Amino acid sequence: MHRKAQDEGSKQRPEKPMFDDEQTPVVPIVPTAPKSPPIPTTGIKQFRCSGGFAGSFAPNFGKPCCDFTSNMLEAKWSREFGWDPMYMVPFQNLSLSPGSRVILQGQQVYDVIQATMGFDNRIRLFRPDQHLQRLRRTAAKLSLPDFDEHELLICVKRLVLSDASFIPPAYTNGSLEVRIMFIGPEPNNKITMSREATLYAFMIRHSSQSVAEYKRSKIVYADPKYSRAWIGSLAQYKTSANIAPTFYVTDIANGLGCNDVLWLYGKEEHVLDFNEANVFIFIINDRNKKELITPPLNGLIVPGITRQSILEMVRYWNEFTVSERSISIHELRTLQRQRRLLEIIATNVMGNAIPVIRIHYESTRTDIHIPSLEHREPLWERLNRALHSIEFGLVDHPWGLII
Amino acid sequence: MHRKAQDEGSKQRPEKPMFDDEQTPVVPIVPTAPKSPPIPTTGIKQFRCSGGFAGSFAPNFGKPCCDFTSNMLEAKWSREFGWDPMYMVPFQNLSLSPGSRVILQGQQVYDVIQATMGFDNRIRLFRPDQHLQRLRRTAAKLSLPDFDEHELLICVKRLVLSDASFIPPAYTNGSLEVRIMFIGPEPNNKITMSREATLYAFMIRHSSQSVAEYKRSKIVYADPKYSRAWIGSLAQYKTSANIAPTFYVTDIANGLGCNDVLWLYGKEEHVLDFNEANVFIFIINDRNKKELITPPLNGLIVPGITRQSILEMVRYWNEFTVSERSISIHELRTLQRQRRLLEIIATNVMGNAIPVIRIHYESTRTDIHIPSLEHREPLWERLNRALHSIEFGLVDHPWGLII
Repeated sequence: MHRKAQDEGSKQRPEKPMFDDEQTPVVPIVPTAPKSPPIPTTGIKQFRCSGGFAGSFAPNFGKPCCDFTSNMLEAKWSREFGWDPMYMVPFQNLSLSPGSRVILQGQQVYDVIQATMGFDNRIRLFRPDQHLQRLRRTAAKLSLPDFDEHELLICVKRLVLSDASFIPPAYTNGSLEVRIMFIGPEPNNKITMSREATLYAFMIRHSSQSVAEYKRSKIVYADPKYSRAWIGSLAQYKTSANIAPTFYVTDIANGLGCNDVLWLYGKEEHVLDFNEANVFIFIINDRNKKELITPPLNGLIVPGITRQSILEMVRYWNEFTVSERSISIHELRTLQRQRRLLEIIATNVMGNAIPVIRIHYESTRTDIHIPSLEHREPLWERLNRALHSIEFGLVDHPWGLII
Repeated sequence: MHRKAQDEGSKQRPEKPMFDDEQTPVVPIVPTAPKSPPIPTTGIKQFRCSGGFAGSFAPNFGKPCCDFTSNMLEAKWSREFGWDPMYMVPFQNLSLSPGSRVILQGQQVYDVIQATMGFDNRIRLFRPDQHLQRLRRTAAKLSLPDFDEHELLICVKRLVLSDASFIPPAYTNGSLEVRIMFIGPEPNNKITMSREATLYAFMIRHSSQSVAEYKRSKIVYADPKYSRAWIGSLAQYKTSANIAPTFYVTDIANGLGCNDVLWLYGKEEHVLDFNEANVFIFIINDRNKKELITPPLNGLIVPGITRQSILEMVRYWNEFTVSERSISIHELRTLQRQRRLLEIIATNVMGNAIPVIRIHYESTRTDIHIPSLEHREPLWERLNRALHSIEFGLVDHPWGLII
């Protein structure tokens, strides 16, 4: 598909940005996503990118070492002096006190931005502004200081450029994962306001092999016994505290031949999300119309940028009903029995839409088969095409920020 | 009180172990705590203490640096080779990959053992067996490997002995906090079985000043909007994922002049626990009898060793009703209005019973006053005396393991 896309891309460059093949209308240039509320600035000194690139700035054009790239970013904050400049340093181990808050108390937030090499040989970041705004919101929730997201974007761009040799070529469908970490390094086991913070960023290379692994169709394990989200919890924030509960359940899932977990919520066993992906459910509804359903942002799921992008796209297409509403696993089973469940799609932070083909529902020990792979023109494939056309530069679109 | 206890201790040594003053009957030597279920051994090579104490074994008799002691323990595990020996090394920073699981995914469990210097100049650990059993149970939940708790106890004893100079004298009421950390250092952002693990232990000195801070009577903030426990969560395990949600709420609490958070659960707003302490509620019940209530071990609270010890003690005293049952904040308010709420007590891992004197209940923005300090012979004080008599060696008791 991608080779085809590449040929098409070289043959005729589309006049206007588009998401899909010729049948699909374009999306408006200005994203319709609701703006996040303004974050009050703290009045502290903000880190600056300019002049801050001291340290050993060593662009690497060699072979990748493991999955990590050569360089990383690091900036330190203290309550007394505010932010130090942002430094680029070679990828290296962190030196952390055995009693650091990040280890003792889980004071950690993160966000991930995808960097891709387009068919036009230009490097793109996918909606970095959305990711950095989310990171600021999350930081406030874990008592970490505010930062200037525009400065951070400049730093991230420079990091990506300096390690550009690591970005896989467009035809491999691979990308770099820019992983921005924000942690509390202070040695303290009391729960008090942070006096220190470290913001760092490193990059993981997703070559065609690891991309294939990420995009493998999902067989998922669903068990209402386990939970990682609750009203009033941190579930809507990107922090390690939401990942810790997944280990045990994922081990059980793997033991049963499943490669992901479908998390359920409450007595009604509402479908929430997967380990690191939001969920979309494509059905034929009561009025015999196609409907795409995704759980609402009620604090129980991470507000995914890919989720948001897909919602904006399909609403613009205006071909079927789109709902943000809760749906229980029991409704899924009924729909499946009535042959009205078309597809279940996982959308992860790397901008992929992955088909789910089977749910192992532990309560009744039954398998729910999803015919996601059995349609002639499945929605997940069309979503992937639309997302990848932006990510890999087949269209110019503001979501794909060229650097 | 302690000086008095010391005098008494020197005058006449009790024949049998006892918990309190003369009026209190002794507790049976064999603790009545239910045994934890046996943990299946993994068949892997276990770390050994004997022969493992290479590294720079440097007993320190100098001044304490910050709150940490001079030495720490460290043992590494890999799936391929099992456990390496346990080394004692000088207290030093950890070298962790920026992409370690402990940072990225919160793969961390811990437990804390209290080490005290008795009035008899002997060093004691408070119920270390219970702590190490709990650590094994917790490790299994975070996909960390099993270990030999008896070997670890030998290692912990050696660590405490080598840094014995740091243990505060008995009359200061201070102690060492032996903090055993068990983390996933592997650089991996996928959720798969661990291939590496690090178990380490370091010690924090609680001098009389920090003890005073720990034992300050509590003014607590209760807000049903926030939650860190729910059915199917990790709430009953000692892991950083349960501490991360406390930052934001504690900041709000501190802003309102409260020094801790009382966590509530569900629509009924059941009382669960404090930030790092279990809760006991002492009331006059419907039958006009005194009753001590603590929330049950239903997966929503950490099964505290101090909690368990107090339950065993007061059940042995057999002077009032003891119940493990859920109680809502609304019941508390009713009891308080009827002047039947006597005391609320926080019991932390350092073996203290701390009075709670006020709850700021955010839903109605009212303060609930607790007369914990207004009784002639309060229960919290009696519990403290009983616990401290074991911790500081005024009685010989199997809960205080002499090393």
